[in-house]
Amino acid sequence: MNEFEIIAEIFAPLASAPGAFGLKDDAAAIPARPGFDLIVTTDQIAEGTDFFAFDTPSGIARKALRVNLSDLAAKGAAPAYYLLNLALPATVTADWLKSFAIGLRDDQEQFAIALLGGDIGSTEGPLAIGVTAFGFVPEGKMVRRNGAKQGDIVYVTGTIGDSGGGLQIRKEKPADISARDRNFLLDAYHLPKPPVAFAQAVRTLASSSVDISDGLIADLGHLAASSGVKIELDAEAIPFSEALLAFRGNGADAIILAVTAGDDYQIAFTANPATDAQIQFEASIAGITVTRIGAVTAGQGVELRHRGQIVSVPRRGYRHF
Amino acid sequence: MNEFEIIAEIFAPLASAPGAFGLKDDAAAIPARPGFDLIVTTDQIAEGTDFFAFDTPSGIARKALRVNLSDLAAKGAAPAYYLLNLALPATVTADWLKSFAIGLRDDQEQFAIALLGGDIGSTEGPLAIGVTAFGFVPEGKMVRRNGAKQGDIVYVTGTIGDSGGGLQIRKEKPADISARDRNFLLDAYHLPKPPVAFAQAVRTLASSSVDISDGLIADLGHLAASSGVKIELDAEAIPFSEALLAFRGNGADAIILAVTAGDDYQIAFTANPATDAQIQFEASIAGITVTRIGAVTAGQGVELRHRGQIVSVPRRGYRHF
Repeated sequence: MNEFEIIAEIFAPLASAPGAFGLKDDAAAIPARPGFDLIVTTDQIAEGTDFFAFDTPSGIARKALRVNLSDLAAKGAAPAYYLLNLALPATVTADWLKSFAIGLRDDQEQFAIALLGGDIGSTEGPLAIGVTAFGFVPEGKMVRRNGAKQGDIVYVTGTIGDSGGGLQIRKEKPADISARDRNFLLDAYHLPKPPVAFAQAVRTLASSSVDISDGLIADLGHLAASSGVKIELDAEAIPFSEALLAFRGNGADAIILAVTAGDDYQIAFTANPATDAQIQFEASIAGITVTRIGAVTAGQGVELRHRGQIVSVPRRGYRHF
Repeated sequence: MNEFEIIAEIFAPLASAPGAFGLKDDAAAIPARPGFDLIVTTDQIAEGTDFFAFDTPSGIARKALRVNLSDLAAKGAAPAYYLLNLALPATVTADWLKSFAIGLRDDQEQFAIALLGGDIGSTEGPLAIGVTAFGFVPEGKMVRRNGAKQGDIVYVTGTIGDSGGGLQIRKEKPADISARDRNFLLDAYHLPKPPVAFAQAVRTLASSSVDISDGLIADLGHLAASSGVKIELDAEAIPFSEALLAFRGNGADAIILAVTAGDDYQIAFTANPATDAQIQFEASIAGITVTRIGAVTAGQGVELRHRGQIVSVPRRGYRHF
C-alpha cells in the first residue's frame, strides 16, 4: 500500500468529524465554538523509549493518543479531535497499520475524540508517532500551572511510578516478582490511564494543575515555579500501587525512583482546602482515586519529606537529553 | 542545555501569542473567533529527503514552516499560529538550535505567524521536524479540492520543478550548468516560496485548490478525483524557470521530471473563466505569477498534452514508500 491507499483505507474511516473532510483535503477545519477556547497539546512517542518494536500495534496507538489526553485532562479540557503524524520505517507492514488503527478506533470511542488529519512520512530511523490533541474549555477557563496559592492542598490522581516500574521490568526481566504484579506494572507502562473523566472537576475545583509525564517532582517543580510558591510533599502520603510496593518496597530509594521516573500520565493539582470533600466526591464519580500528598507554602521548589527528614532528589525527572 | 532550558531560552521568545503562555504550560489556548473556521494542516520534513544535515539551520527551520504555509494558502487561509515538534539526534548543538530559531523568527515576521507550542524529544534516528500550522477563513469558506467544474480554467502559481532540479543538482553535482542557474535551483530546493499573499484571492476566486507538494500531476490528480472531473494540461503552457530550462531543456522527459518531482509548495487551482482578468490582477498585487495551464473537462484523471500528443506520465509524483 502506498501512503494514499493507507490514508484512504486505514485512517479515513477514523475521521468522522465533518471538518476532517474524510482526509481527502490538504487541511482540516475546526468550526469556531463561541464562548469556548480550543486547547491544543502535542506529544510524540518514540520506539525504544515509550514503546518497543514488538509491542502490540493497537497498544502503541492507544499510548500515543493517551499521553496527550492526560495533558487535556490536566488543563480541564474535554477531548474533541486529534492529528496523527507518523514517520514509518520501511519494515512497517499494512497489517501492522491496520492493527494500529484498531487501537485508535477503540480509544476514539472510549474518549469521544475523532481523527482530524495528519501526515505520513518515511524514516530511516526508528518509528516515531506524534499526536496533537484538541479539546475545549469555556473561554479563559484553561487550568494553568500558575494558580497555586499558599494554603492550597496538593493532590495527585491514580498511583505514581507504576509505568517506570513496568519499564524496569521490561528492561531487566527480574525473576523475584509475582506474575500478577509484573503484569500490573507492565500494563501501566504499555497503557496509561489518564483521568479524562475527571477533567471537568479539575476545571471547576483546581487552582493549578499539571500533567505528570516528566515525573511527579519535576512536574510539580514546574508548577511551583510558575505559581511562585513552594510545594511540600509528604512521601508517606504518595499513592503507590500494591504491585510497585511488592516490587520495590517503600524505602526512600524506591520512593525517589517512583517520583522521578515519569511516564505516569496522571494529574497533580492544587485546590483550596474548602473543596476537599467535593474533590473526593467528583473523583468517586469519575471512577478514579485522588490523594492528598502535600501542601502549598511560601518559598520555592519542591520539598519531599520522608519519616520527618527532607529527602534529596538527585535527578528530578525524565529528560530526553 | 536540557530541554527545559532550550524551550525557555531559545523558543519561548518566539511564542508571542497570549494563548502560548510563554511555553510555560502543558497546552496552548486558541480563543474562538466567531464567524471563522480554524484551518489546521501538518507536514513533517526529514533529514536526507527534504534537507541535509549540513544545510543552514535557519534555512531548515524556514522550510519546515513554509511547507505548511503553502497548504494554508491553498485553502485560502491567513496564517496565525504553529506548533513545532522536534526529534533531535544527540549531535544537535545549542548553537544549531539558536540559528534554527532565528530562521523561525524571520519567517514569523514575514508571514505574520507565531509559535504556539510543541514538543522536543530525542531520537537515535535522523533529525525530524514536524510543524502544525493554523490559519483562519470565514466560516465554511475553506477552498476544497472538490469544487472544480467543467469549463473552469486550471492555474498554477510560480514555476514548477525548480526544487526537484535543485535536489538533483545537490545529489549529482553536475558541471554543465552556470553558477547562476545552479544557485537559483538550489535556492528553490532550500527555501520554498509559498504564495501566502495570494491566499485571499484563492478564497474569493478559486473553485478548487490544492498545494503542490507531491508533484503537479499527482496533486491535480487528487483534485480531479475529489471533484469528479478530468483535467487536461497543456505541457507547453506549464511555467518553467529559465534556470530549469537551461539545466534540462524543454523536451518531454524534462517536463515529466518537473511535473512529478514534488516539493514545489506552489498552488494549483481552478476558476471560472469569467474571473481570469481579476486573477491576474490579484496575482500582480500579491507579487507572484499565475499561469493558465489547462482546462477542466468531463471524465477523470489528468491528461498531459505535449505538441499535440498525450504524454504518458509513468510516475505520478513523490511517494514516501
